[in-house]
Amino acid sequence: MSAASQGLRLVVGTFVDQLAHGGVRHVCVCPGSRSTPLAMLLAEHPGIRVWTHLDERSAAFFGVGLARALGEPVGLLATSGTAAANFFPAIVEANLARVPLIVLTADRPHELRDSGAPQTIDQLRLYGGHVKWFFDQPAPEPQASAEQVRLARVLAARAVGSATAEPRGPVHLNWPFREPLLPAAGHHADGQHASLEVRNPALTPTQELIASLSRDLSRAKRGLIVCGPHEDAELPTAVARLARCLGYPILADPLSGVRFGEHDRSLVVDAYDAFLRDAPTIERLQPEVVVRLGAIPTSKPLAQYLQRFPAARHILIDAGGWREPLGIASDVLHVDPRALCEALADEVAASAASPWTSTWLEVNSATRRAIRRHLDGLDELFEGSVFAQLASLLPDGCVLYAGNSMPVRDLDTFLASSSSALRCMSSRGANGIDGVVSSALGTSAAGVGRVVLVIGDVSFYHDLNGLLAARRHGLDLLVVLVNNDGGGIFSFLPQAQADAATFELLFGTPHGLDFRPFVEGYGGRFVRVRSWQDFGAAVGDGLAQGGLQVVEVPTDRARNVTLHRQVWRAVADALSPAAVC
Amino acid sequence: MSAASQGLRLVVGTFVDQLAHGGVRHVCVCPGSRSTPLAMLLAEHPGIRVWTHLDERSAAFFGVGLARALGEPVGLLATSGTAAANFFPAIVEANLARVPLIVLTADRPHELRDSGAPQTIDQLRLYGGHVKWFFDQPAPEPQASAEQVRLARVLAARAVGSATAEPRGPVHLNWPFREPLLPAAGHHADGQHASLEVRNPALTPTQELIASLSRDLSRAKRGLIVCGPHEDAELPTAVARLARCLGYPILADPLSGVRFGEHDRSLVVDAYDAFLRDAPTIERLQPEVVVRLGAIPTSKPLAQYLQRFPAARHILIDAGGWREPLGIASDVLHVDPRALCEALADEVAASAASPWTSTWLEVNSATRRAIRRHLDGLDELFEGSVFAQLASLLPDGCVLYAGNSMPVRDLDTFLASSSSALRCMSSRGANGIDGVVSSALGTSAAGVGRVVLVIGDVSFYHDLNGLLAARRHGLDLLVVLVNNDGGGIFSFLPQAQADAATFELLFGTPHGLDFRPFVEGYGGRFVRVRSWQDFGAAVGDGLAQGGLQVVEVPTDRARNVTLHRQVWRAVADALSPAAVC
Repeated sequence: MSAASQGLRLVVGTFVDQLAHGGVRHVCVCPGSRSTPLAMLLAEHPGIRVWTHLDERSAAFFGVGLARALGEPVGLLATSGTAAANFFPAIVEANLARVPLIVLTADRPHELRDSGAPQTIDQLRLYGGHVKWFFDQPAPEPQASAEQVRLARVLAARAVGSATAEPRGPVHLNWPFREPLLPAAGHHADGQHASLEVRNPALTPTQELIASLSRDLSRAKRGLIVCGPHEDAELPTAVARLARCLGYPILADPLSGVRFGEHDRSLVVDAYDAFLRDAPTIERLQPEVVVRLGAIPTSKPLAQYLQRFPAARHILIDAGGWREPLGIASDVLHVDPRALCEALADEVAASAASPWTSTWLEVNSATRRAIRRHLDGLDELFEGSVFAQLASLLPDGCVLYAGNSMPVRDLDTFLASSSSALRCMSSRGANGIDGVVSSALGTSAAGVGRVVLVIGDVSFYHDLNGLLAARRHGLDLLVVLVNNDGGGIFSFLPQAQADAATFELLFGTPHGLDFRPFVEGYGGRFVRVRSWQDFGAAVGDGLAQGGLQVVEVPTDRARNVTLHRQVWRAVADALSPAAVC
Repeated sequence: MSAASQGLRLVVGTFVDQLAHGGVRHVCVCPGSRSTPLAMLLAEHPGIRVWTHLDERSAAFFGVGLARALGEPVGLLATSGTAAANFFPAIVEANLARVPLIVLTADRPHELRDSGAPQTIDQLRLYGGHVKWFFDQPAPEPQASAEQVRLARVLAARAVGSATAEPRGPVHLNWPFREPLLPAAGHHADGQHASLEVRNPALTPTQELIASLSRDLSRAKRGLIVCGPHEDAELPTAVARLARCLGYPILADPLSGVRFGEHDRSLVVDAYDAFLRDAPTIERLQPEVVVRLGAIPTSKPLAQYLQRFPAARHILIDAGGWREPLGIASDVLHVDPRALCEALADEVAASAASPWTSTWLEVNSATRRAIRRHLDGLDELFEGSVFAQLASLLPDGCVLYAGNSMPVRDLDTFLASSSSALRCMSSRGANGIDGVVSSALGTSAAGVGRVVLVIGDVSFYHDLNGLLAARRHGLDLLVVLVNNDGGGIFSFLPQAQADAATFELLFGTPHGLDFRPFVEGYGGRFVRVRSWQDFGAAVGDGLAQGGLQVVEVPTDRARNVTLHRQVWRAVADALSPAAVC
């Protein structure tokens, strides 16, 4: 082997070794020539599992799913050119969803840049402000200097450190390589440089903050906790304990982890998306103080309800960033949410049930009863019923992944809080319908529980390529495909009243696809159901069989709007003074 | 309708009207809510055809294909969020391939930016330096001021002007919109502001440049013209005329337009990719001056040949940019290539055939004969034979679209120059294997001739989603799918000697897909051939039937390397002194 190959091994091998040392255990690798040094040294490292993918877009979303499910940084590797550009949608998602990724792109060396060379694009800051950190590596020298080896180790350590510091997110390292691209055989790294430790401890609140906040919150008569999507598995217990101490109801987003599990859920309000559409009910529920955790909740009625009361004290607790599109926050606390919840709970004396809290819980129960009664009287395949049906079908410890657009909204409205150990996930960074299949498969690859994905047909089509990973990597995924042949959510918007031809051309966009041959082409099983009885059997069979299972629920876009509006009407009726009397 | 809806119509309608006035006749529109004002006003404009697509990545590549085939700017529209990020690979390609695109993205207004609002990402300079121009529009005011209407018109005119100025490329306009998103009914634009004209005339060479260059070129004994990929349909005739006047051979890339057609092809050299692999032949062909036009040619042996003679005068003629990865140019002339060729041809006296030129033409003929003889003796489904077979099957006026990686290289080596009106195209901006199906379908949508796409299986898989457009828009496309179940080009690289398991994991990446159900799922016809006789029949049937037709040629990756090397060996043997004697 040449000196150049030795240099490659020393520099890139050290880099890979430090990545593994920093906790990178999984890397999604896409084939390419220029990326050969990284691909080969990642593949041979005993601490790293390589997941190969042929479509970089799907690969990157798979990585997002894996990283989010595991709560640890995952690597991506693409060769030079548009390959790297295909990572972009998933990187945007990861940045907003706070998912740690180490994005590695191979590049041509300087002499081939910006000169029309093949497969050479400008990869400097390729992802713009959508990554937390970018660095353009020097091309490994034939005779790798100690300086360059040291730099490779430092950059790997900084990459992991930066990706995992709160708020977490993707980082990008660009690696120019010259030929030869094949690293020499040998050890993973030089033994001369010790590995590097980077630590990012949680941001703990000061005693002063705890004291003043606990005093203020204890005094409030009409307090609320709103818990939006987040990824801290231990936050739900802490939030539940704080709510109990303060006597506040918790408006728990389905992606907050607070709705499901064995923790104290007696103060959980889970039906607000339905009852906060009802104006008279909103007037009964004027808050004095709102404590908000996590990302903005899924429910638009909840957002509108909060904005209706800008004079209340709105306290936003977040380790960093500015997730406050409502524009009403009065206090933004940049501390670790769990640490603050625990410290506050230690500080405040337990509070008795208040009429305020009882009202919330009663309205919530009445709403859930009204929804259940309404769905019980409905035999047809209504999209909202999917989640109500799944509630009794999903095994404990399961991950329920909801696609964007309608599924995650239906999840919010129709899946009631329960003690089952159900983890709900979704792609709520940018709320895209893209890459959802791959994100769910990446979640499956994490091995944290059986994954059931509920997804609409346009979103399913968008990432059909992602299904290859199910077969390639022998993964289990049960997909509930809600197929209304087009963009169902647009039927809820004013343009649904435009002329039908224009609406169908631009928004309805029926594709007319029968997904069976696609699913079967990827080695999956496809079942189209005609009734909830079929559905129950198909989901049961699918879970028992494993592999890729797709259960299609055919629905109609216009009818879906009607049925949703009937539910909201039924809830309003149940909450009207006449009904309460 | 509200004042806001009137304002929307006035501002956005004026913008759309000026786009159409500037020559935008086609816009690829992807469904979304935030983009409603643009989508509706584009769809109703009588001068604009809207092509809806459900996957933004495929939509954008479709737009690239359409714009390149028509030689005119094409619009893209995406809603806010990751939808817009999915355009990125095609925008990178368009920028490097110099394809004019008007990229429109809908955005949230300022108060919802960078605050965790749904479907809101940072769209300012979303595509970085990969677009020629970016502008963030102001959100249309409820009472649209004359100033805002004027600005909308100016920005549309500038967008088209910038995209079509040499070197052409994509521009990006970001449009924040507030609700309501439905424009009022009414006229397309206000009648108050005249439409705007922007003109970008070709860069004509000065008399001084023409005089000095014609003198120098006339004197050179061993001159060459190298014509790489470009999109000017009238350049081939001009190049042929210049070559005739100078007595220079033309090394014509298959994507140069010079290899095929009724123009004078007597000085065209088309087999250099094969004979410039032969060291003794290279020594016979030392150039004194090289005139280069277009992008870097496809052939790596040609590039290496040119780099072998850095002391020669290398004159690069290009309207702009710096397409010179070889690092050997001695003169870079930023003028319109066609204008310069014509002016030079007018200036120089016709030259007699020189021994230099005869040698090139003889070596070329001997090479073509050797290749033909070798292929004639080969019955099996060799990838290189695909283009030799197609030569006699393609109808006149056809567009032959070659995928990247192996197909475009095989096109170069195996498709001989001819008088047939064949237009060869490929995605040679960044040479990606992504988006190729969609680019070919966009080419078909241009209506410039029947399109035959030759593509490898990994590239076909990468853009399977693109096939939806064939059905959705009733397009014809004949696909010759060269299926070697993985990344065939890697078998030519040194890593093919690595251990087989690692090679297959990282580079070979077999997917094992049977593409039949996918093609049939998109309403296409799929035929797998077993012989060249089958192949001829299938291509003939496919062309006769129209619609989406896929003819699969199954091959083997390792065997393909062997067969290519046999061809090069046969060429070297034919060119050896022993053979010439």
